[in-house]
Order: sequence, then C-alpha cells, then structure tokens
Amino acid sequence: SMNIHGYMNNSGYEEVRAAVAKSINDKFLTTFTQNNILMTVGAAGGLNVIFKTLLNPKDEVITFAPFFGEYRSYVKNYEGELVIVAPNTINFQPNLEEFKKKITPKTKAVIINSPNNPTGVIYTKATIIELSKIMKEKQKEFGTDIYIISDEPYREIAYDDAEVPYLSNYYANTIIGYSFSKSLSLPGERIGYLVIPDQAADYINIIAAANIANRILGYVNAPSLFQRVIAKCLYAKVDIEAYNKNRELLYSGILAYGYQCIKPQGAFYLFVKSPIENDVEFCNLAKMKNILIVPGSAFGCPGYVRIAYCVAYKTIEKALPGFKALIEEVKLPYYKSPI
Amino acid sequence: SMNIHGYMNNSGYEEVRAAVAKSINDKFLTTFTQNNILMTVGAAGGLNVIFKTLLNPKDEVITFAPFFGEYRSYVKNYEGELVIVAPNTINFQPNLEEFKKKITPKTKAVIINSPNNPTGVIYTKATIIELSKIMKEKQKEFGTDIYIISDEPYREIAYDDAEVPYLSNYYANTIIGYSFSKSLSLPGERIGYLVIPDQAADYINIIAAANIANRILGYVNAPSLFQRVIAKCLYAKVDIEAYNKNRELLYSGILAYGYQCIKPQGAFYLFVKSPIENDVEFCNLAKMKNILIVPGSAFGCPGYVRIAYCVAYKTIEKALPGFKALIEEVKLPYYKSPI
Repeated sequence: SMNIHGYMNNSGYEEVRAAVAKSINDKFLTTFTQNNILMTVGAAGGLNVIFKTLLNPKDEVITFAPFFGEYRSYVKNYEGELVIVAPNTINFQPNLEEFKKKITPKTKAVIINSPNNPTGVIYTKATIIELSKIMKEKQKEFGTDIYIISDEPYREIAYDDAEVPYLSNYYANTIIGYSFSKSLSLPGERIGYLVIPDQAADYINIIAAANIANRILGYVNAPSLFQRVIAKCLYAKVDIEAYNKNRELLYSGILAYGYQCIKPQGAFYLFVKSPIENDVEFCNLAKMKNILIVPGSAFGCPGYVRIAYCVAYKTIEKALPGFKALIEEVKLPYYKSPI
Repeated sequence: SMNIHGYMNNSGYEEVRAAVAKSINDKFLTTFTQNNILMTVGAAGGLNVIFKTLLNPKDEVITFAPFFGEYRSYVKNYEGELVIVAPNTINFQPNLEEFKKKITPKTKAVIINSPNNPTGVIYTKATIIELSKIMKEKQKEFGTDIYIISDEPYREIAYDDAEVPYLSNYYANTIIGYSFSKSLSLPGERIGYLVIPDQAADYINIIAAANIANRILGYVNAPSLFQRVIAKCLYAKVDIEAYNKNRELLYSGILAYGYQCIKPQGAFYLFVKSPIENDVEFCNLAKMKNILIVPGSAFGCPGYVRIAYCVAYKTIEKALPGFKALIEEVKLPYYKSPI
C-alpha cells in the first residue's frame, strides 16, 4: 500500500512500549501493556502532554514545596493554577495536614517528585499511603477524580537500597512520568515515557488525548533512535556508586563546617539551610568563590540552597574549602549583608 | 566550579548553531551568526516555540490553503486564530488579492510552506516579492509588525534545479523554521532549527523569549546527539533522484488515466483533483483498494486528494493499476455514492 513518510505512532514504537511495560511489570509487579505507555520527549515533554490532556482553565494542581520550579510554567502553559503546600523543613516529607486543606473541587491533579529535586528526600511508604488515603477521601467528598502525577526522573538514583514506592500500586488515578536522562546519563537526549494505567479514571479518553497532545504540541514522537537505545537498557543496573561517594564526601564535609542539612536518600542534590536568611544573597556570595548553587526560592523554599553533586569527585574536593570559607565569612561578628 | 547536570544552553550547542548559521550564509548570502539560530525538536517544535513567543490571545495568523493541517493546532495552542486564505486552484500559488483583504491590525504572522505540503508547489520569486510588498504596506498602514514564518521542511527537495527563494532576503520580519527530517531522511529524530534574524523587529526580545519557550514548553533542548550529527551533514547534497523518478512515474501515470493534477516542483506529494466531488469518500474508495491517500479537506482544500510518493518505486508501480481502476469505477454511468 502507498503510505505516508515513515513516522511511527505518535505514542512511540509498539515494541519499545511493550518492552517498557514489561520492565516495569518485572520490577514493580504491575500489569501494564504497551497500551499504557506513551514515549515522550523527556519527562518535561511527558508532563506537558499530561497537563495539556488533563487541565481545563482554572483547574488546580497541587505540589509540595520544595518542588522543581518548572512546574509553575508547565501548569500555566495550560491555564491551570499551581497550588503550593508549604515545606515541612523538619524532614521534607510532604505536609499532609496542609495538603488536606488545600484540596478543593477544582483540584485536578497532585504532582509529586520523589526522589526529590531539590532535597534528595524519598517520600516514604507511610507518606504515600497517607497521601493516597486523603486523596481517596477527597475524591469521594467532592465526587471528582484527582490524579497523582508522579514525576520520577530520579527513581533509579536511591542510595542504601532505599525503596521508592511505585505509586500506581497505591492509588488508581496515578500517572507516572519517567525520564532516562538521569538514570542512563543521557541529559540532552530527551527520552522518557508516561504510564497511564487502565485503572485510571477515564483511561480510554486520557490515553487517546495524550497521544494527540504529543502530536499537536509539536513533540510528534519521542526521538526514534533513542527509543531503540533505551529499549536495550531497561534492565541495566544504574551505577550510583560515584554519586554515592560524592554524597558522602559533600554531606560530611559541609556538616563538619557547621552547615545544617538532612542527608539525601536519592537524586544528586543536597538541600542546605542557608547560613544567612537571604538564600539568593548567599548564592551570590558563593558565586564569588566560583561555587554555583541555586537558591531555595527557585523551589518555593526560601532560606535554603541546593548543591548539585553530579560532578567529578575532585570537583567536590576542590569546592569544600570554599564552602568552609563561606560559612566562616558570614558568621564573622562584623559581617554585614552587602545588599 | 560546581555546576548543574550537563544540559546545554536551551538554544542548543554554540558550535552547532554557528555551523548552521555559516551553512545558511554560504548558501543564501545571508549574514547570520549563532545568535540567530535556535535548535529545535523538529520543525513542529520550532513552530510551537515561535507561536508561543509571538502570539497573544486573539492574535491572527494567516495561512494559504491548502496548508499543513497541524497549523490549526499550533496556533490554537497559544490562543491565536488561524485565518485561511482560500486556495488558488489554478496553480496553487497564494491568492494574494484575498490575502490583502484578510490582513488586519490583529495579524501577527503569516505562515507559508514552500515547497508546499500538500501540493508540491514552490512559491515563485514573483510571489514572494509581491507577498512582501503587501505585508510592508500593511505594516505601514497599521503601524504593526507582521512576521512571515517560513516553514521549510522540504527546502532541499526541489526538482529540476527550481529555486526556493530564501525569505529573509526579501522581508526583514522573517522567521524560518527548518527540519532535517526530510532532507536527511531522519523522520522521527526530531531535529530542526529556527532562524531569527537581527533585522526582525524586536529581535532581542524574540530570541530571548524563544529560548525560554523552548525550555518551558518541555522541549528543553533539541536532542543532543542529533545536533552533533546534523552539524556534520550541513553541506551534504540531498539525493532527490529517487523521489524524482517516483514523481515522474506517478504523475505521468495518473495523468494518462484521466486525473487532473499540476506537476509538483518539490516535496514528495501529488495534489490531485478528486474525480468525485467528495474527497473523503474518494479516499475511502481508495482505501478499499489498499491505496492510502489523504483528503484535501484536511489541508483546507476539499475536492482534492494528496498522494505521497516518498515510497519505493515498485510500490508506485503496484499502486498505479489501483488508481486506474478507481477512476474508471467512479466514472461509470451507474456509479452512485455509497454514502
């Protein structure tokens, strides 16, 4: 038969999607098929596709501070409203009491990110169970469907064999966004997927609309060569030992200098209390010592800073004296804010 | 220095952008630098980025039928209104008289596509000069900036050494969207670029906003490996001889059967007058003979059908008897529409 030029299904190659589904089933005892998988242009592409699919103007999406700052744009792109639950700075698990109060009849989705950027915290099984319980109650109370969108680019980067609960095993209306950028060290390659389970309310319409959204948002399909590549790497054990060594060195180092910080369980970030109140100012001081860190304000959590340790070990060794000098400087009795 | 994970500038690798700029300069006597180039996730990604950048709600974008149907979605994604100029079915050059009347103070952009999908027609130099003249006059009349967005995925596929005018040489407010999918036969790889010339009104803001749009729309950056790949292929001569042989075979074949069609000068499509009024019905009849063609209605031009010839030569040989049988069937005196 005559046929149009060789683009694949907008959801991706059938056999790649089947392989992805099988690998998830093998790891998390789920029962997905290729019909639950949509290959995306990275996790960012996947999140845009699912927000385009789910959101009507003024719909609310809840997230827990600190959170990946791009969520603001992704939700706003489709005229949704991002509702932020204040951070729980004791252990950076979600603040579920405040969460409960912020769910309204307009809440369409809750986006979570664990292991978390910027804290490195993994949301515990107890957290996930309680979160799911609250959402089920609220769905019943309001007669609505509220989706969990689980943004999981750091799933494979969990230290000390920490468990990262698989959300669809706890809550039916779960949609998972995954990226291979971090797990396979392919930043820049833009390859990931969405999981849309059969159990999700309105599954048939969501999967069809997401396929169309992938097309009309101009992604068209996930890059084809890297679809083939990742299909060969689905069972590759991610070597996180290098990150782990960095984590130990950086964490113990800055703790010894007097910084306050919880130990990250995953990802490759340390979220540190700024020794001065103004986190932006502290980042500027660090920059003068050639240390690039990001203010917590960017993640909805002022007063903290994020240090990334996905760098060479010796880069951290070289940076440590700078961190020491920084905290000594701002703790001097005559230190005055330059602002 | 400590640094975040290895993503590049959202606009793409500096050296790739510089190489792209140089290759355009060499071919079209332009004077672009890397600062005029933004690498995109295919042409579709580029068009979404530029519409996100340029459009405010209710802004109008004009296009000429027949046109690539996805423009409807791309414009609607950013709350713009697509304004369609009716087709000129004599030679499928744009209908410039009607165009003139449809430009309003709300016209933000005009999107053209030459060589054209679905007609294969190349807009002539005379057309481009007249189009530019009209737009300059209207800009003056309304005191507005009106951008030409030139969507050029088929630029390299031009037969008989036909010239495809380079738009920025005719009109200052030109933005060019390019894709390597067709020229390098990389469908599915999602790699292209936008050219935003210094001369374009509001250049500084547009280039900055487009960089941000690329990020917040979730493209983040064009796939990195294929940025490197295309940088090595910028001067590769595209071999269009296979397409050309297909074109000659298909065109002469269906003409001999009594179909009406203008000879395409570029791309790999034939746009044929449907032998029955209802083009959708004709496509359904064709499907029963295992021939997949697309109704002109999808391109804003009912009464026509698009045949793609980016297929194997022998596929066309096999399809020709089907086309013959089809037209004979619908021309039988007792033929009645099955609808």
